[in-house]
Amino acid sequence: MQTLSVDLGHTRYPIHIGSGLLSDASVWNRGIAADSILVVSSSTIAPLYLEHLKAGLAGRHVAQCILPDGESNKTLSTASWVIDALVGNKVHRDGLVIALGGGVVGDVAGFAAACYQRGIAFVQAPTTLLAQVDSSVGGKTGVNHPGGKNLIGAYHQPIAVVTDTDTLATLPDRELRAGLAEVIKYGCVWDPIFFDWLALNVGALLARDPEALAYAIARSCEIKAKVVGQDERETGVRAILNFGHTFGHAIEVATHYKQYLHGEAVALGMIMAAELSRRLAMIDGGASARIRELVAAAGLPTEIPRIGTERVLELMRMDKKVLAGNVRLVLLEKLGRAVVIGHYEQGALETMLREQVG
Amino acid sequence: MQTLSVDLGHTRYPIHIGSGLLSDASVWNRGIAADSILVVSSSTIAPLYLEHLKAGLAGRHVAQCILPDGESNKTLSTASWVIDALVGNKVHRDGLVIALGGGVVGDVAGFAAACYQRGIAFVQAPTTLLAQVDSSVGGKTGVNHPGGKNLIGAYHQPIAVVTDTDTLATLPDRELRAGLAEVIKYGCVWDPIFFDWLALNVGALLARDPEALAYAIARSCEIKAKVVGQDERETGVRAILNFGHTFGHAIEVATHYKQYLHGEAVALGMIMAAELSRRLAMIDGGASARIRELVAAAGLPTEIPRIGTERVLELMRMDKKVLAGNVRLVLLEKLGRAVVIGHYEQGALETMLREQVG
Repeated sequence: MQTLSVDLGHTRYPIHIGSGLLSDASVWNRGIAADSILVVSSSTIAPLYLEHLKAGLAGRHVAQCILPDGESNKTLSTASWVIDALVGNKVHRDGLVIALGGGVVGDVAGFAAACYQRGIAFVQAPTTLLAQVDSSVGGKTGVNHPGGKNLIGAYHQPIAVVTDTDTLATLPDRELRAGLAEVIKYGCVWDPIFFDWLALNVGALLARDPEALAYAIARSCEIKAKVVGQDERETGVRAILNFGHTFGHAIEVATHYKQYLHGEAVALGMIMAAELSRRLAMIDGGASARIRELVAAAGLPTEIPRIGTERVLELMRMDKKVLAGNVRLVLLEKLGRAVVIGHYEQGALETMLREQVG
Repeated sequence: MQTLSVDLGHTRYPIHIGSGLLSDASVWNRGIAADSILVVSSSTIAPLYLEHLKAGLAGRHVAQCILPDGESNKTLSTASWVIDALVGNKVHRDGLVIALGGGVVGDVAGFAAACYQRGIAFVQAPTTLLAQVDSSVGGKTGVNHPGGKNLIGAYHQPIAVVTDTDTLATLPDRELRAGLAEVIKYGCVWDPIFFDWLALNVGALLARDPEALAYAIARSCEIKAKVVGQDERETGVRAILNFGHTFGHAIEVATHYKQYLHGEAVALGMIMAAELSRRLAMIDGGASARIRELVAAAGLPTEIPRIGTERVLELMRMDKKVLAGNVRLVLLEKLGRAVVIGHYEQGALETMLREQVG
């Protein structure tokens, strides 16, 4: 087991990464004292791993709340069910929520924990690669609104992240690849050496080599922890973690969230953002090509859907990351270093869009 | 106009108190830059004061969301309407929510502002004495759950509190008196000189003498700001502000929130807490009697309803303020100084309850 630390100044928590952690009582006994626990999981994950987790929590009072699967259930109503379960099971202020599942479970359960009694402790036990490298770390919780994704939410840090890499054994191939998109992102925005390592080891990752996966997860979490530690509330550097997300989000909305998984849309968005960085002469064509090649090698889509320039521009203006009307973009100034830019040549953006999305 | 400051270390905000502030643009131009504003108010308050506020905000884009009146509407559904209004009016991250009304409006609007886009700015413009001296200051926001009051919420500090004392002109007498209960509380828990001042000036307050009211509001806010500045998240001293609230809450629940306003129940709870403090030999009978006399002089109820000892004990155990099973109580060690006590003679509690509630 490896243990990393997320240090936010006002609080600090560990990320444990390893095999067999869910059922390992010694992991759960490290600084997790609560006796009154609600495990929130999904209808897919609970039958696979809930018993493992209960073994790790043996001797404690554990209630459960199983949510229907899928992004369409990431709503205020679902969060409200979790709160009902907390009330119904008389979980007190000193109780604990454990989110066992992917990003949706983590976001909903974390938001419910943030709101219940104005915030009780919670632990992330992510079971998808995407959740393990991204959403479980950093304290963003929330649900969707018909008007937009993640419009309702809270910053609420977990007291620990417990990543049992064994759970990846049952992850569908397509979801594994979607998770790799966020892993690639960390290489692009922060660490050229990690990017090189990924380019060499993407085959091992796709073949689910345990050592390669554990390293990729740990390095991704290290980078995320470092960035979040500098800027918990995303007033500055944390925004670089949205690399590929503004364009990716436009693709997701324009295709009604049906054609692409989040990671797949982010992969396409990263290709677009790299291409724009190249047009603005921030990176050269070689760097842009290497990103596209790694995305392709990870089995992720590289062909941008023709959703139309005007639609993308409109969706960008509606995006949460608009500050006082300026659409800020995360671009690369070299492979391995991202910058957030509010002032750029609008013509370059439009030319890139016309070429890529029609 | 008087301006106090709430200093929480990580943030700091002003409380402006005075006559005519709602319509005074110079107040709203002090550090409140947002151009995209949603005013949340109630069906009672909006017809009286919304136009005043709009005059103060002239030249800005102001949308409104009017909630039905009353504690029964302090629900997750109502908070969700406010979020719908924020989405529908395309209020961005740099937008602002203004809560114009009493405690319910402030709690619901503040909670919606806390959750929308993981937290946008909000201003409290309280129009009841209770909200002016208590709920508008300190950042507690939230809604009720069928299982209990304020079970769903967030700590989200306003960026300013704008208290226009003119709004008290339309406040029903009974609500004015209920607000005075919380004012008396500050004297009991923090400031014996303020308690003495209240005993001398309660007549002027009931007669709505503007100077007396402005002083009582400002002194109450000063005390609350000081306490909250020391302990924003109620891990310690802030709990003293719950003086009278544990017993008061039991009275509210046992009478189904129909017989007493919150302040009235708190008044009764303070009498009970003072009586228990006397039985535990922490204060003498004179101090306990002075509290009861001031409560009576403020036109508040002093006769405890016979709701039964067992029921109170059961409700106390369910209260949020239970930590790891111990019912902590806020008691007085002298008139003007409260302490939070987890270990006390259970027999004294039961004897007091048998005498007071049957």
